[in-house]
Amino acid sequence: MIRNNNILIAQGGGPTHVINQSLVGVIRQEKKQNSSIFGALNGVNGIINNRFILLNKISNNDLNLIANTPGAALGSTRDKPDEKYCIEILNILKSKKINKFYYIGGNDSSDSLRIISEHTKKINYSLQCIHIPKTIDNDLVKNDHTPGFGSAAKYVAQLFSGINFDVKSLPGVYLGIVMGRHAGFLTASSSLLKKKNDDGPHLVFIPESPFDIKIFLEKVKFTFEKYGRCIVAISEGIQDEKKKLISQKITKKQEYDAHGNIQLSGTGSLGDFLSNQIKNKLKLPRVRSDTLGYPQRCFVGSASEIDQKEAHDIGVFSAEYSLLNSKSFSAGILERKAFTKNYKIKFIANSLQSVAGKTKVMPKTFYDNTNNKVNKIFYDYALPLIGKNITQTKTII
Amino acid sequence: MIRNNNILIAQGGGPTHVINQSLVGVIRQEKKQNSSIFGALNGVNGIINNRFILLNKISNNDLNLIANTPGAALGSTRDKPDEKYCIEILNILKSKKINKFYYIGGNDSSDSLRIISEHTKKINYSLQCIHIPKTIDNDLVKNDHTPGFGSAAKYVAQLFSGINFDVKSLPGVYLGIVMGRHAGFLTASSSLLKKKNDDGPHLVFIPESPFDIKIFLEKVKFTFEKYGRCIVAISEGIQDEKKKLISQKITKKQEYDAHGNIQLSGTGSLGDFLSNQIKNKLKLPRVRSDTLGYPQRCFVGSASEIDQKEAHDIGVFSAEYSLLNSKSFSAGILERKAFTKNYKIKFIANSLQSVAGKTKVMPKTFYDNTNNKVNKIFYDYALPLIGKNITQTKTII
Repeated sequence: MIRNNNILIAQGGGPTHVINQSLVGVIRQEKKQNSSIFGALNGVNGIINNRFILLNKISNNDLNLIANTPGAALGSTRDKPDEKYCIEILNILKSKKINKFYYIGGNDSSDSLRIISEHTKKINYSLQCIHIPKTIDNDLVKNDHTPGFGSAAKYVAQLFSGINFDVKSLPGVYLGIVMGRHAGFLTASSSLLKKKNDDGPHLVFIPESPFDIKIFLEKVKFTFEKYGRCIVAISEGIQDEKKKLISQKITKKQEYDAHGNIQLSGTGSLGDFLSNQIKNKLKLPRVRSDTLGYPQRCFVGSASEIDQKEAHDIGVFSAEYSLLNSKSFSAGILERKAFTKNYKIKFIANSLQSVAGKTKVMPKTFYDNTNNKVNKIFYDYALPLIGKNITQTKTII
Repeated sequence: MIRNNNILIAQGGGPTHVINQSLVGVIRQEKKQNSSIFGALNGVNGIINNRFILLNKISNNDLNLIANTPGAALGSTRDKPDEKYCIEILNILKSKKINKFYYIGGNDSSDSLRIISEHTKKINYSLQCIHIPKTIDNDLVKNDHTPGFGSAAKYVAQLFSGINFDVKSLPGVYLGIVMGRHAGFLTASSSLLKKKNDDGPHLVFIPESPFDIKIFLEKVKFTFEKYGRCIVAISEGIQDEKKKLISQKITKKQEYDAHGNIQLSGTGSLGDFLSNQIKNKLKLPRVRSDTLGYPQRCFVGSASEIDQKEAHDIGVFSAEYSLLNSKSFSAGILERKAFTKNYKIKFIANSLQSVAGKTKVMPKTFYDNTNNKVNKIFYDYALPLIGKNITQTKTII
C-alpha cells in the first residue's frame, strides 16, 4: 500500500520566529517518504482559492535559510472556516487526492483543523489532519510550552534587559506593553534576565490578574520612590475584575478579526493612556511608554536556538508519528513534572478536540499577585526556553 | 613631569548600545598611563553633586562585560550647563586636581563641553576637555558616522526585515516610527536588509524631506495596490514644509528637555495618528503602527561588532591623542571619500567649536525624494556599519 503520497502543508494565524522550522521539519521528513509535498498559500484561504505550490524541489540550502526566517514562508490567514468553507476545502483536497494535511498554527488554527477533520467523516473522505502548534502567547492547553514562545520570550527578555540599563542611565518611568491576549507568559518573560533586586521590570501586570488603575498608580509611585525609577511590563490583554479589556474601555473604535479577537497590537493607545495617567496624577518625570508590537514575533536575529530546534523537531515528529497512527492529532510537548536543571522534553500526540480553541493561562504558582512580580518557579520553567546565546551584561551604577 | 594623573570620565545624553565600549577604551588606555581614573555619575550633574567613583580597580573581566552592556554604565544626564553651572563644575574639578575630562556624548554633550572648556580660560585653570562622540542619530558634523549609529541601524534593519516577512504572511499596512529628531539616517537604515524589489519597507519618510499627509496617503494607497501590502518607515522627526514637526501639530501637550528638545519617543501618538488617517481615508485592511521606541538604542544582543570595535577604539584613540596634544578636542571618524568595499576608517581630532551643537543631516545623494526610497549610495555607506553577524533569510512566497 502506498500511504501518504500526497501531503499538504499550510500555516495559519500570527507567525512566529520559528514557524518555518516546523514547516522545514515536515518537508524534510516527508521527503524521506517520497511524498508529493504541496503547500497551500495563506493557510486555509489558499486551499479554497486553489493556490498550491509543490515544495519537493526546494534545495537543502534554501530549506536551511527558510527555517531561520521569521514569518510564515507559505503565507498565513486569519480565516476561520465555517461548515460551508470546510466542505469546500474537503472537496478540493479530495480532488487533489491529498490524504494528509498538516496545519501549523495556534489554537484558532487547531480549531479550524478540528472543524475540518469532523467534516471528513460526514463526506466519508479519509484525511489525516495534523496540527503542529505555534504561538508566541504560549496559551495552548496540554502543552508544556509552544514552539514560538521561547524566541518571543527571548526578544522580550533582551528588550527589558536593555531598557533596565537605559532607564538606570536616565531615570524615569518606563512602560512596555507586551503581546498576550489571555495569557501572561510573554509579559512575565520580561523578567527573565533580571540579575539584581533593583533591576527592572519592577512591576509586571498580566491578563490573569485583575487590573485596577488606582492600585497600578500606587505601585508605580511606591516603586519610583524606592528606586528612583520604575520599569513596568504590562500585557496588552490586561482586564478589569469583570474581565473587560482595559484596551477596550479606553478606546472608542475597535477592530476585530474573523475569530472575534479585538486588535490589541499595532497601536500605542494603551501605553499612552497609562503613561498619561502617571504624568497627570503622579507628576513623575520622564514617563515613557513603548508598545513592543510585531517585532516580538518576527525580529530577525533573536530566535532562541532551543526554540528553533524544538520547532523543527516537532515537525519531524509529526511526520514520523503520522506513519504509526492514521488518526488526526495535535502534536505537542509533554508537560514537565518538575523544572529541573536537566531540561528535557518529549513530544506527544493529543487529540484535536482536547486542544482546539482552548486557552491555557499562567499557573497561579508562576506569579505573585500581591507584589506584581514573577515567582522563582517561572524562571525555572522559562529560562531553558530562551536558550543560552544571550549577551552577558554588567554595569557600574 | 607627571601628566594626566587625575582624569575624569562622564557620559551624557541618550545612551547607546556601545557607549560603554568608549568608556572601557578610555579606562584601559589611561590605566597604562597610571592615571587615577574617576567617573562622575550621571554626567555633569554628578560633578556638581560631588558623585564620583574611582574606576581603576574594575577587573578586566568586568570591563569586558561592561563594554558589552547597553546604557551608560556611569549614568547619564540631560542637564545643559549654563555659565554658573560651568563655574561650579570647574571649581570642583580644580579642587580635585582633575586635568583631563572625557565626556562621552552627542552634540548636546559636546556643546556642554565646549562651554566648560571656554570657561577654563576665564578662571585660568588648565583642563583638557575631550569629547568622545556617540549618538544613534548619526547627526554629528565632521564625522563619517558616529559610534552608536551602527548598532541602532542594525536593530532597525533587523526589525524591518522581520516585519517584511510578517507582513508578507498576513498582508496589510505597517507603519514603523523610527527615532531621529533631525536626521533620517536611522530611518533610512530600515531598508538595509531588503533583498527583493517588493520587499519592505516600501516607503521611507525622513525629517529632511517635507512631509505632506496627502502625498503620504496617495503613496500608501499606490503601494498597497501594487504589492497587496505596504510597509512604511517613518522618522519621528518628520516635518512639514515650514519645518514644523508633525508630532507637534497633532498633540496638545508637549514635554521638553533642558536642551529644548520636544519628547518624540515613548509615545505612540504619531503612529496612531497616521494609521487612523489610513484607516479612515483609505479604508485599507490590517493597518498597524509600531513606535520602535527605546529598544533602538539599548536592545541587548543586537550590537554591531564593527560599531563595538570602533566605539572602543575611539576611546583608546582619545586617550592616546591627549598625550600628544594638550588642547581640548572632539574625537571623530574622518569622512570617507568613497564608499568602497574596502571599508576602512581613520580617527581624527576636531576642535570642539567645529562640532558642538551642530547637526548633520542626510546628504541629498542618499535619498530619493520623489520615490521616498533610499539610494544605492546609502547602502554602500551604511551596510559596513551594521557588521556581518546578520541572520541570513529566505522565504517561499
